[in-house]
Amino acid sequence: MLSCRHMIGQLLNRQYQRHASSITAKILEHRYVELTQTDGLQLKYPSIWLRDNCQCPECFHGATRARQSYWERSPLDAEANRVNYDEKRQQLVVNWQDDHNSVYDLEWLKQRDFSVEARQRYLDEVYKPPAQLWSKSQFGDVTREFAYKDVIEKDAVLGAWLEALAVQGFALLRGAPDDVQVARHLAERIGYIKLTTYGDVFEVKSKPNAGNYAYLMKPLPMHTDMPYYEYKAGINILHTLVQSDSPGGANTMTDGFFVADKLRREHPEYYELLSSVPVNWFDIGHDGDAGKPFHNLWRAPVICLDVDGQFARINHNTMKRDSRFTVPLDKVGAWYEAYDKFLQLVYDEAVQFKTRQGDVFVFNNLRMLHGRTAYEDSPKNQRHLVGAYVDWDIIYSKLRTLKFPNPKD
Amino acid sequence: MLSCRHMIGQLLNRQYQRHASSITAKILEHRYVELTQTDGLQLKYPSIWLRDNCQCPECFHGATRARQSYWERSPLDAEANRVNYDEKRQQLVVNWQDDHNSVYDLEWLKQRDFSVEARQRYLDEVYKPPAQLWSKSQFGDVTREFAYKDVIEKDAVLGAWLEALAVQGFALLRGAPDDVQVARHLAERIGYIKLTTYGDVFEVKSKPNAGNYAYLMKPLPMHTDMPYYEYKAGINILHTLVQSDSPGGANTMTDGFFVADKLRREHPEYYELLSSVPVNWFDIGHDGDAGKPFHNLWRAPVICLDVDGQFARINHNTMKRDSRFTVPLDKVGAWYEAYDKFLQLVYDEAVQFKTRQGDVFVFNNLRMLHGRTAYEDSPKNQRHLVGAYVDWDIIYSKLRTLKFPNPKD
Repeated sequence: MLSCRHMIGQLLNRQYQRHASSITAKILEHRYVELTQTDGLQLKYPSIWLRDNCQCPECFHGATRARQSYWERSPLDAEANRVNYDEKRQQLVVNWQDDHNSVYDLEWLKQRDFSVEARQRYLDEVYKPPAQLWSKSQFGDVTREFAYKDVIEKDAVLGAWLEALAVQGFALLRGAPDDVQVARHLAERIGYIKLTTYGDVFEVKSKPNAGNYAYLMKPLPMHTDMPYYEYKAGINILHTLVQSDSPGGANTMTDGFFVADKLRREHPEYYELLSSVPVNWFDIGHDGDAGKPFHNLWRAPVICLDVDGQFARINHNTMKRDSRFTVPLDKVGAWYEAYDKFLQLVYDEAVQFKTRQGDVFVFNNLRMLHGRTAYEDSPKNQRHLVGAYVDWDIIYSKLRTLKFPNPKD
Repeated sequence: MLSCRHMIGQLLNRQYQRHASSITAKILEHRYVELTQTDGLQLKYPSIWLRDNCQCPECFHGATRARQSYWERSPLDAEANRVNYDEKRQQLVVNWQDDHNSVYDLEWLKQRDFSVEARQRYLDEVYKPPAQLWSKSQFGDVTREFAYKDVIEKDAVLGAWLEALAVQGFALLRGAPDDVQVARHLAERIGYIKLTTYGDVFEVKSKPNAGNYAYLMKPLPMHTDMPYYEYKAGINILHTLVQSDSPGGANTMTDGFFVADKLRREHPEYYELLSSVPVNWFDIGHDGDAGKPFHNLWRAPVICLDVDGQFARINHNTMKRDSRFTVPLDKVGAWYEAYDKFLQLVYDEAVQFKTRQGDVFVFNNLRMLHGRTAYEDSPKNQRHLVGAYVDWDIIYSKLRTLKFPNPKD
């Protein structure tokens, strides 16, 4: 243990060094350039990467942020001749063996530090905020509410709402006007609406002879929308125009990433099956009586991971799971066993709540499973929601422009 | 070797048996139901799968094609009590231990045969037609041309065009009118256009102070559009309204799946790197001078595979490849080496052709790399293309509705 006086001494010393310390640059093993500061800062970059990312006007087109060198081959033969750190300008200067010179700002280099911590920080802060997984008992803690008006009018509230969708996976907006355009306005506030077979906004209300189970008054089991699309909707914006006076019509929801994580921890063999065995998701029909026919198919496991091994997408909709199960016979029984455990967890972890008129319930459709309890319409009370979809490409882009309004690079 | 007479005898015999043979059903190991025909037909189904897909009105909602049983658990405890094949109705009848009865048409069962061959046939014929990979020297053989008018007017030609996009990865339409709506009409003929940050249709012509490299007269290196989107555009529809009179402005194109396959065969260690190391693809800017800001990021390898191990997506755009390379330091040099070989193959296998006014060049943007040679506008001749995107979910759906206009199940 260090004494308090000793620690303060160290801090003062470090602070002093921050001003006085100098940076030295050197070439390592002909393949790396290393910057070392006397206070301990150490940055190491591959020469080939430095050459590939030379920021001079010949190599890089600033107006379009576009690399314009090494189009047909990579700079495999790039080798640094001399390197120098310019203290005054805070720049690394590299002279290459072909006599080209490159200059890199220290700040630019620091932002591209290859250390584990710096890379993770970039992914968490800029790429995607890490998801906060939650169990049924944590529902109260993770619920975020915003005033509809504030989301529309204030960028800071818009940002907080999108952050909640990324982190907690859902949010509730209150006080939306009695206007069928609310879902569309919210989608356009983010960027633009996702078009689907059904058009842009869609109405959820009970219809006689419905071609889609969601348009019946029956209960809707826990599901994600559109598992049968490769480009499944990112978020679902559901605006309650008229809520049912009957005891039913409540929303149910489970954090699918929480369930996947629990499965991975507690039943790794089931997790392995559900994240590898492809299921055929399907939607075949006509949009309305005279509408265009569609025949959608997508093969994907229940649990899908991204390139970093993070949960990317949950697919589940028992009504859209095809009877065609295109897997080897000996996988079938084992898959159903794993699937049974998944279902059990999904229902164990399901929360229930009933929106009111003017509420907008928005959730990450790649992550949350949602459902609805049965209800009864009456002539004077017909449940009526209007929905819209937006893709995550668009949401993350908007969130980043709000967090980093003037990205320099 | 069998004699000819012997073979004919066998064929006649088999033909006879097809009519006369009977099918017997039996339960195997308490877990499977097997159908055996005297001529050799053998079908085997897991009991749990049969129970899960019972087609009776209680278990299955015909109007919405939706399973309505086993929502909260899977039928793990389903065990067949008795099975019987009804020769007259050509149906398998299963009596379950809970006394439920299920009836399955033989034809329905055959379509869901779990054998390797039947599964592959389903994937190839219904899910996605297999891609025909092609090298530069095969370009002539794989080029498919259609009259624009026929694609708009005849469903059979529309189907052949979409099949070419799925199989060969590109096609040329000839004789489109001098109308900026052509790309939109084609997108709507398939289903609907993909919206992007740029709106719906987009114009490719040289612009002063362009914010996108494609809007300069410079050469465009080989690339795929939108690697920085998770939901990257499926196909690119490029209608030539005005072609350049200058020697340039020609299209270049390489089959990225062919290159990936060649790399896998000839340089497996490079293939491994390019199909696993994530690259940061980015697009940061404003849409036009006063337009909305965007900040797009997507991390993905150059070569992406689908759940069946088939090539799913090629990402490459040297101008949209971020200087932030969020991978461990020791991967960087090896990745550049693999990437160099990839680039070499892409340029070795590139074909070149110049569209004329009225041509519509359409290609699979998940598979083809495309580029453009430099050109010169003059006051009287300003190159002008109009483009539109459509996603593969929509294209495959349309193709299936054309191939299977009345799917029974």
